[in-house]
Amino acid sequence: MTPPAPPSIDILALGNAIVDVLSHVDDSALEGLGLSKGTMTLVDSAQADRLYSALGPGVECSGGSAANTVVGAAMLGVRTAFVGRVRADQLGEIFTHDIRAAGVRFDTPAAADGADTAMCLVMVTPDAHRTMCTHLGASVELGPDDVDEALVRGAAVTYLEGYLWDPPGAREAMRRAVAVAKDAGRAVALTLSDPFCVDRHRADFLDLVDNDVDILFANESEITSLYETDDLDDALHSVTPLVKVAAITRSEHGAVIVGDGEIHVVPAEPVAQVIDTTGAGDLFAAGFLVGWTGGRTLHDCGRMGAVAAAEIISHLGARPEADIAALVAARVPG
Amino acid sequence: MTPPAPPSIDILALGNAIVDVLSHVDDSALEGLGLSKGTMTLVDSAQADRLYSALGPGVECSGGSAANTVVGAAMLGVRTAFVGRVRADQLGEIFTHDIRAAGVRFDTPAAADGADTAMCLVMVTPDAHRTMCTHLGASVELGPDDVDEALVRGAAVTYLEGYLWDPPGAREAMRRAVAVAKDAGRAVALTLSDPFCVDRHRADFLDLVDNDVDILFANESEITSLYETDDLDDALHSVTPLVKVAAITRSEHGAVIVGDGEIHVVPAEPVAQVIDTTGAGDLFAAGFLVGWTGGRTLHDCGRMGAVAAAEIISHLGARPEADIAALVAARVPG
Repeated sequence: MTPPAPPSIDILALGNAIVDVLSHVDDSALEGLGLSKGTMTLVDSAQADRLYSALGPGVECSGGSAANTVVGAAMLGVRTAFVGRVRADQLGEIFTHDIRAAGVRFDTPAAADGADTAMCLVMVTPDAHRTMCTHLGASVELGPDDVDEALVRGAAVTYLEGYLWDPPGAREAMRRAVAVAKDAGRAVALTLSDPFCVDRHRADFLDLVDNDVDILFANESEITSLYETDDLDDALHSVTPLVKVAAITRSEHGAVIVGDGEIHVVPAEPVAQVIDTTGAGDLFAAGFLVGWTGGRTLHDCGRMGAVAAAEIISHLGARPEADIAALVAARVPG
Repeated sequence: MTPPAPPSIDILALGNAIVDVLSHVDDSALEGLGLSKGTMTLVDSAQADRLYSALGPGVECSGGSAANTVVGAAMLGVRTAFVGRVRADQLGEIFTHDIRAAGVRFDTPAAADGADTAMCLVMVTPDAHRTMCTHLGASVELGPDDVDEALVRGAAVTYLEGYLWDPPGAREAMRRAVAVAKDAGRAVALTLSDPFCVDRHRADFLDLVDNDVDILFANESEITSLYETDDLDDALHSVTPLVKVAAITRSEHGAVIVGDGEIHVVPAEPVAQVIDTTGAGDLFAAGFLVGWTGGRTLHDCGRMGAVAAAEIISHLGARPEADIAALVAARVPG
C-alpha cells in the first residue's frame, strides 16, 4: 500500500449548521422549563417557538459544535473545511458568512426550501453553565451526496460530531465520510457531544470507536455514558485499546489524554471569570487537533486545547473573540 | 385647559426597528471601506451585502437607537412602548422577541412582504468606537397610520430618534405623533442621532426644536452641526431658550444638562474597560428619561443616564446585559 499523498487540508469537519440564540436564565426557570442542566435536548419547531417566547432577550451567534471547532482551528492557522446544511434564509446567510469569514471552506449548498436554518436556544445560568435546546431544521437535509469525497481524501483529519447521528441523512453522510477517510489512510476524529446523545446512539458510537475512530473527544459524563459505568477509570480502560488517542475533558479539572501508551494529565488554563461554557469542548478539540496535525506532543496538544477552551468560556458565545493564535503561541510555545 | 390625565405609560419611542450585526475591524480596514469613523451611513441592499462580505465573523443583537432606549427604560422599571416596522422574517422575529422580552409593548404589525427587516452593520475599532452602516429595509414601510393616537395621548414622553427622518413615511409618522403629543399636553423628546443625519434634516430639526421639543438629546458633534458652529457654548446658547431641557453627552467627559435656568455638569461613570460604545447615547437617554418621568432632579437624571451608558459600553452590543436597575439604584439613590 502506497502512503497517502500529503493532505490538501488539515481538518474537515461535518456537523449541524446552527445559529445559537444565547440568553440568561436562572436555575429555577430552567427547572420550570423541565430541562436537564448542561445537556442538549432536541426540540421541534413548535417546542422551539414556545421555549423562545418564554426566554428573555437574546444575542445571536453562529454555532454548531463541529463548526465551532473548525472555526477555531482556522483561526489557529490550519487549513479547514466544513460540511453541513443551512437553508437559504437570513440565519443561513449569517452562518455562511461567519464560517467563511473565519477562513473555513464551506461549499455545501443551502436548501432552497423546507425547514429553516437550525437554531439552538442556549440558556446560560448564573454559574456560567449552558443548557441547550436545538431545533435541527435544515440540518436534517444533509445527506451522503453532500460529502465531497475528494475533500475527505485530502483531509488529514475528518472530524465528526456525535450530534450528527440525530438526523438520519446526516448519519449516512458521516458513514460515507468515515469510509472514504479510512480508505484514503486518513485519521477520523469523533466527539461524543452529549451524554443523552450517547444514550440515543450508543451501539453506533461503540461500533465507530471500535472500528474507525483514531481520535476520540469526550467529557467525563459522555465517556462514562458510552461504557455505561460510573467510573472514569473503567471507561478509560475500555476505550484505550480501541483508539490512537482519547482526549477526555474535565471542565475546571483540565483534561486527561490517553495515547501512545501514555497518560497525560493536562491542567485547565486559568480564566479570570467564566462567563459562558458554551463551546468549551468544541474549542478544546480545535486546539488539540491543530496541535495533532502539526506534529506536537500529546501533552502540547492538550495544552493547546485548554488555552483555546479558556478563551471561549471567558465570554458569551462559542466563536472566539480574541486572537487565539497569539494566546496559544504565548502559552504553548512550539 | 384641563390638565392631562395621569399618563398610562411613561415613555413611548418611535424608531427604526433594526437588528445589529457587530464585528471588529481595524482602522485601516475602515478607511479602506471609505467610512467615516463614529458616524452612521445609510446603505442600500447591494451595498450592505458587499460590505457584509468584506467583514469578519459577527454577533447579532437587536438594536435601533430609540428601541435601545426604550428597552433600557423598561429594564429600569418604567412603562414603555415602541412603534417601528420589521418584516415578518427571521430577523424581524428576533427583534420582536427581544423588545417584548424586555417588557416593552410593541404592537406595530410586521410587513408581510417588501424589504427585509432593517440591519445595521456595526464595525467596532480597537479603540471601542463604533461606525455604522444601516440598510433601512422594512423600516421605510412605517407610516402615519402606525401611530396609535391613544398610546401617544397616554404617554408622559414621546421619544423620537433623528434617524427616523430618513424614511419619508416614518417622518410623517413622527409628525403625527408630535402633533398628538402636543395636543394632549405631553412632553416630546428628540435625539439628534448623528451629525450627518443632522446635515440631512437640519431645517426640519431646527423647526422641531423651535416649536415642539421639550427634551433634546445630542452629543457635541450633533448639537454643533445643528447650529453650524464649532463652539459648544454657541450651540448651547442657541438651544437653551427653545427647549425645557437639553442633555448634551460628551463621551468620557460626561454630560452637560441645561434646563430650569441651570447648567449641570455631570461626570461620566467610571468603566473598567470600554469594549464597544454602541448604544452609549441611547442608554444615556434611557436613564435620563426614567429619572425625568420619575420627578428626579436634572442632576440625578444625568447621573442615571451616565450609569446606564457605562453599562452598555462595557460589553459588545447596545442592549443591557447587567441589571441596570440595580446599578442605577446603587449609584444614584433616590
